[in-house]
Amino acid sequence: MTVQSLPDARSHEARLDRLAEIAVRVGLGLAPGQELVITAPIEGVGLARLVTEHAYRAGASLVTTLFEDEESTLLRYRHAPDESFDKVNAWLYEGMAAAYRSGAARLAIRGSNPALLAEQDPAKVARANRAMARAYRPALDLITQYTINWSIVPFASPAWARAMFPDEPEGVAVARLWDAIFASARVDASDPVAAWEAHNRELQTRAGLLNAKAYAALRFRGPGTDLTVGLSDGHEWLGGSTRAQNGLVCNPNIPTEEVFTTPHKDRVDGHVSSTKPLSYQGTLIQDIRVRFEGGRIVEAQARTGEAVLRKVLETDEGAARLGEVALVPFSSPISKSGLLFYNTLFDENAASHIALGQAYASCIRGGTDMSADELAGRGANTSLIHIDWMIGSDQVDVDGITGEGSSEPVMRGGEWV
Amino acid sequence: MTVQSLPDARSHEARLDRLAEIAVRVGLGLAPGQELVITAPIEGVGLARLVTEHAYRAGASLVTTLFEDEESTLLRYRHAPDESFDKVNAWLYEGMAAAYRSGAARLAIRGSNPALLAEQDPAKVARANRAMARAYRPALDLITQYTINWSIVPFASPAWARAMFPDEPEGVAVARLWDAIFASARVDASDPVAAWEAHNRELQTRAGLLNAKAYAALRFRGPGTDLTVGLSDGHEWLGGSTRAQNGLVCNPNIPTEEVFTTPHKDRVDGHVSSTKPLSYQGTLIQDIRVRFEGGRIVEAQARTGEAVLRKVLETDEGAARLGEVALVPFSSPISKSGLLFYNTLFDENAASHIALGQAYASCIRGGTDMSADELAGRGANTSLIHIDWMIGSDQVDVDGITGEGSSEPVMRGGEWV
Repeated sequence: MTVQSLPDARSHEARLDRLAEIAVRVGLGLAPGQELVITAPIEGVGLARLVTEHAYRAGASLVTTLFEDEESTLLRYRHAPDESFDKVNAWLYEGMAAAYRSGAARLAIRGSNPALLAEQDPAKVARANRAMARAYRPALDLITQYTINWSIVPFASPAWARAMFPDEPEGVAVARLWDAIFASARVDASDPVAAWEAHNRELQTRAGLLNAKAYAALRFRGPGTDLTVGLSDGHEWLGGSTRAQNGLVCNPNIPTEEVFTTPHKDRVDGHVSSTKPLSYQGTLIQDIRVRFEGGRIVEAQARTGEAVLRKVLETDEGAARLGEVALVPFSSPISKSGLLFYNTLFDENAASHIALGQAYASCIRGGTDMSADELAGRGANTSLIHIDWMIGSDQVDVDGITGEGSSEPVMRGGEWV
Repeated sequence: MTVQSLPDARSHEARLDRLAEIAVRVGLGLAPGQELVITAPIEGVGLARLVTEHAYRAGASLVTTLFEDEESTLLRYRHAPDESFDKVNAWLYEGMAAAYRSGAARLAIRGSNPALLAEQDPAKVARANRAMARAYRPALDLITQYTINWSIVPFASPAWARAMFPDEPEGVAVARLWDAIFASARVDASDPVAAWEAHNRELQTRAGLLNAKAYAALRFRGPGTDLTVGLSDGHEWLGGSTRAQNGLVCNPNIPTEEVFTTPHKDRVDGHVSSTKPLSYQGTLIQDIRVRFEGGRIVEAQARTGEAVLRKVLETDEGAARLGEVALVPFSSPISKSGLLFYNTLFDENAASHIALGQAYASCIRGGTDMSADELAGRGANTSLIHIDWMIGSDQVDVDGITGEGSSEPVMRGGEWV
């Protein structure tokens, strides 16, 4: 008899491997024979390879990873001629859209440096983002409309970890960020797939309760905030896993703690203050204060990144209106970590939030089969952008306003009532 | 007065930077405002970044690098289902073709592991290559027809260096390979751009002498070789830099020591033996012996990789016919290094060679404006593949056969007469 030592399930390599397996089985719900397109930071090649292996083991027909190099992005800002910033590699975005149209699933491995472009000219950043958003639109539509199964999973890049733990040595910072990622992704559960199934049921129960209420609006009140967010007609609360139009069930965000729906683009009024910094394309936008009238932002300020925020709001007509509202209790595991991630994938799951820009058709009953005009008629917003920012905290209360105008508590002190 | 120490032009970093500059200025002849698409092994990110910087400094509008990961390729062979090997990410090849059609230049940074796929099933390798070649065809046509300026530059990957210097520690092997690359790319010349201009003039003079001769055929004779290669009607010898159809002058291969033209697809007869191993898509094919009749290979053997060779010849009708013949003196600098590179970019510049498959329209006078039928009428071959292999050595003589059938010496003992 030989006794083989088992790999330590808690070793970094083993946990990374489980994260890759969760990405393929829970995040994507990849089908045998399906193609997979991965985008990943070049430092994340190790995780990309583990995902590639699990995808092939799950029967993937072909896995292609498009690696992104932030250093090359910076070289552009440092050395490219001014005309460069209206130019985009449309051929690559068209290629990705073609892949999705032919049935490929999509996984984004994300670990951006939150401050990558902080010192670059905001006008150039805005021009580059606008050109990119236009080129990306057809592919993004296939994603937001869940034509295909897709997911986003985090990667602890050194630059991201340094931004979160500026006083720690880089190795310690990266290890702490990985710990937070593994915990939020339920990697250490004895059966991660079962843990995700239970978590999805919980989020779907919460969404079901809100759907039964069918509120006309939500009202957020807290320090610097008194905002009424009208909900779109026939809105549907969603949370956890989603069945894509190709029939496959995916968890589009790992981690996820939110339930969310589509606000009415013309029925948002009042003022609201952000409760966490927003990291947008490499710029940190802190202490946002905006005022809405008839759904549109009419005043906007921020302590840092205000120029970038203003450029964002000018992207198009829909950029100054809401496309999403989401509720997350203050006691969510990510919130409890006490960490500020400077990364929407995490921070939006630590606090209730709203998103500027494009709405999800899937958050309107029957929405994925509706025309653009029908969706707009229900109040769904349209924009090249979709940017989440956090407005919840333990000091923010949320009320539901019924169709008859009466009010009932939904959250108190950041917790479900 | 302050005295600043100059960077050592011979340091590795400085030489790598000069290679990047040569790639942009000599290899591509990149125009201000032009887009650039780079393909690079993921280990070559450092060189890719230097090229990116030089490209932006030269006025590039946008640089996109598509990184290739050989580990992920191996994961496919190890874990993907059998159906995978007929599947290709056509959307990515179509995207590259779209980039070239819209005017982008193309740089390939190459440092493949010559033995990557040596232990994989040759049938799967052949299926994957055939699917890839079909998808790549539109992009490859834009390259081989010089619709755009393009170039290939080498990168000393650890796997390639290990294959060349199996008895050296990896660090030494990589350093020796870099030395050979830098020497062949004229990086250490006091003015590398001027050195390349002189080298290009020399190759173009040699091509001019052969064009003045306008031989009907070449005859190669040596150990295991007596091969008559008929040349296409109106063939043109080329070497060194090329003016692409967009008017930009590029050096498509760095290094380059060859003059080359298009044989007649139906007029190749006799037998020929390879004089160096051929590294084809990760398989080493050694000691090739083939016999031609009426332009077509009718017998083929190899000491290693024969199964892969046979699959290659079955790719399509043109895969068993010649698309290129090239002359390189035995005294060329790469040949004199005495090294075997297991890499066509180098080994083809150390010895006269022939290529199976697709012909270059640019090697026929007026060819880039001709229809496919006109080109075929001149004898230009068509195929999904283009694979160079070496048939020259210091023991091989080359004669030129005139239209009247008389013979005159072109090379003796591997040197120009």
